Amino acid sequence: MARVVLKFGGTSVGDVERIQRVARIVAHARNGGQPLAVVVSAMAGETDRLVKLARAAGGETPNSAPAGGPGFDDEYDVIVSSGEQVTTGLLALALRQLGIPARSWQNWQIPIRSNADHAKARIDSIDDGRLGAAIDAGEVAIIPGFQAVTHEDRITTLGRGGSDTSAVAVAAALNAERCDIYTDVDGVYTTDPRITQKAQRLARISYEEMLEMASLGAKVLQTRSVELAMAKRVRVRVLSSFVEPGEPNPGTIVCDEEEIVEKQVVSGVAYSRDEAKVSLLGVEDHPGVAAEIFGRLADANVNVDMIVQSQARHEGRQNIVFTCPEREAQRAADALAAVREKIGYEDILIRRDVAKVSVIGIGMRSQVGVARTMFQALSQRNINIEAIATSEIKISVLIDSAYTELAVRALHTAYGLDAVG
Amino acid sequence: MARVVLKFGGTSVGDVERIQRVARIVAHARNGGQPLAVVVSAMAGETDRLVKLARAAGGETPNSAPAGGPGFDDEYDVIVSSGEQVTTGLLALALRQLGIPARSWQNWQIPIRSNADHAKARIDSIDDGRLGAAIDAGEVAIIPGFQAVTHEDRITTLGRGGSDTSAVAVAAALNAERCDIYTDVDGVYTTDPRITQKAQRLARISYEEMLEMASLGAKVLQTRSVELAMAKRVRVRVLSSFVEPGEPNPGTIVCDEEEIVEKQVVSGVAYSRDEAKVSLLGVEDHPGVAAEIFGRLADANVNVDMIVQSQARHEGRQNIVFTCPEREAQRAADALAAVREKIGYEDILIRRDVAKVSVIGIGMRSQVGVARTMFQALSQRNINIEAIATSEIKISVLIDSAYTELAVRALHTAYGLDAVG
Repeated sequence: MARVVLKFGGTSVGDVERIQRVARIVAHARNGGQPLAVVVSAMAGETDRLVKLARAAGGETPNSAPAGGPGFDDEYDVIVSSGEQVTTGLLALALRQLGIPARSWQNWQIPIRSNADHAKARIDSIDDGRLGAAIDAGEVAIIPGFQAVTHEDRITTLGRGGSDTSAVAVAAALNAERCDIYTDVDGVYTTDPRITQKAQRLARISYEEMLEMASLGAKVLQTRSVELAMAKRVRVRVLSSFVEPGEPNPGTIVCDEEEIVEKQVVSGVAYSRDEAKVSLLGVEDHPGVAAEIFGRLADANVNVDMIVQSQARHEGRQNIVFTCPEREAQRAADALAAVREKIGYEDILIRRDVAKVSVIGIGMRSQVGVARTMFQALSQRNINIEAIATSEIKISVLIDSAYTELAVRALHTAYGLDAVG
Repeated sequence: MARVVLKFGGTSVGDVERIQRVARIVAHARNGGQPLAVVVSAMAGETDRLVKLARAAGGETPNSAPAGGPGFDDEYDVIVSSGEQVTTGLLALALRQLGIPARSWQNWQIPIRSNADHAKARIDSIDDGRLGAAIDAGEVAIIPGFQAVTHEDRITTLGRGGSDTSAVAVAAALNAERCDIYTDVDGVYTTDPRITQKAQRLARISYEEMLEMASLGAKVLQTRSVELAMAKRVRVRVLSSFVEPGEPNPGTIVCDEEEIVEKQVVSGVAYSRDEAKVSLLGVEDHPGVAAEIFGRLADANVNVDMIVQSQARHEGRQNIVFTCPEREAQRAADALAAVREKIGYEDILIRRDVAKVSVIGIGMRSQVGVARTMFQALSQRNINIEAIATSEIKISVLIDSAYTELAVRALHTAYGLDAVG
């Protein structure tokens, strides 16, 4: 039978009762003998507790910025990785209580290898030999997510949210039919159901669309895990860990676009309020000035998103407008102020009451008029567009954040995504 | 320079501040470059927390008897062993804060191998190659105590108190000059200082004496660790973890008796109140009856200590009296009641208000009159002796527990152990 990988996050394994429910879900999925590997996170709260201890011992007060840097991250990984280890043992015991053969597999026992980039390592190989044989023989394998070991046998962690990535990597190594990510939502929606009750769960979504959704703030799956799934062609299913086993729980399949027969022009409407608009006014119009500006911003670790260039009122000068995450706006302004002489601009303005609204769909590629529908829908509601950015499968607009919900609902309706009834 | 192993228990590493003090002690012991390995326990309370989780997931309510048996112990070990792993990382970070090069070494990284007797494994080999090279190069090695890995790379634990054993085993493998066990007392005393202020810290004690002291209730060192130290000829020093580094903290050296020039006839007076006296009265005096009785008790897992046989009032009958730990007395009586017919005794009595007081000393071997001194000292205080047991280096008597302190003080004085002034 085909192998399947299941993944449960920290909330799903938050206490022993929840771990026992996870055991029932796994027992049901096994259905008599399907080879299963289960990737688990630390119990909710554990990682935070361990991070605080590490920071305190590493000379930081709790809740301050991470100590980071050489001399901290390798032992931080030793400390923090213990959380998932505990969950693997507990789930193995809970499964045995249900009569299911199960055992934990620590990363070094498999091994799952990564580079030595502690606290943000990247998996580079997984030995599927013993692990695959064990699950094919009918024993459920429980694996701690979010971690690996280096080629020198040191413990690494993959960074926050790395458990999704672990699950997809294990699924790829085991050549699994599917990677089921159990989470606290029952799938991927056409938009945020808190904004409109007409939002619908998608049966399928392509990797590319999911990537745009994930990076736009639909926090269902870690972006890195979707990238890996796309690269390795692992079919991922997002579904709820709070549905009792046996009850309907189809979730959303994230897959290759070839598998999606009826391609929607627009599959979803995403939004993000974590945006700031930085306007550089009256920039001297000479060669290399844009390179200077965005080079400085990159050095200051500012994630620039949209960029708009326009003619200024004064002859020989231009305005350069860009967006970045809100918390990075002041850093951006400071970095540019430091080279004001060199760039030669008249003024710098930051606006924080802006939001980005995006429509996403692989059908866009073969369809004209998608942007026109968007602009019409917004203009009918008198919503002013401050900036526009497009990719092959996405159109984003920057608007006044007060209009976010209105814009999302208007676009959801305009692209025919509203649920019937 | 000669290698040294240091060991710190759960109370000594109970929180980050205490771990920082341990780091200062280690830094002081390193004294510029002495090769050091440090064995640590889980932070106080952690092991209990993890044991409760394991029992809950394994189908037991917290605080009940351990789930035990196959299907539990291997994953119990996975869960519980995580506690020490956390301490290793924290101490490594705290040492680096002091500018001391340090890293954690998990058991599988060394490796420290044991048999597959989960939850009560015995170490069978330690590879000292990479570990020894690392500490000789000046990097302090931090090792989680109480655990190992099997030859099939599964995690094991050594049972409660196994950290002392880990430390001694590491010291033996590294051919260390000494194994320093830091604990909450500052050494081994001639008797319990709570009973008499005249108790004195011993500068040295032999393995044999320490074994008798440990098993008699002077809970300074785990019996297993002393046995191992004796077998491998590892010099162990017991000293306080609450003395600031630099302050006098000589502790007690546990060593080969060859190293002890001035052998005391009696080195210490130990006592135990966890005793019960079980009297089988009027036992039929036929061959094999003693074998039957003590065979049944062994089957019932009763640890029999002293045994006294005497003539009963009735012709052809005898009384058999034995002692065991108090909590096992009822189990002992039940086991014997089940075979009353076969043994043929008239009555069975349990007395719980008894205590065992022992004098211990390797000098006894070459000295006569040691027992006489004991009996005289007790009879002068009108303390009745209910049973006597002797070994080469120990004489134990069973007395009414109300006289325990009186007996200990009397013997302490009689053997010249009282501190001057």
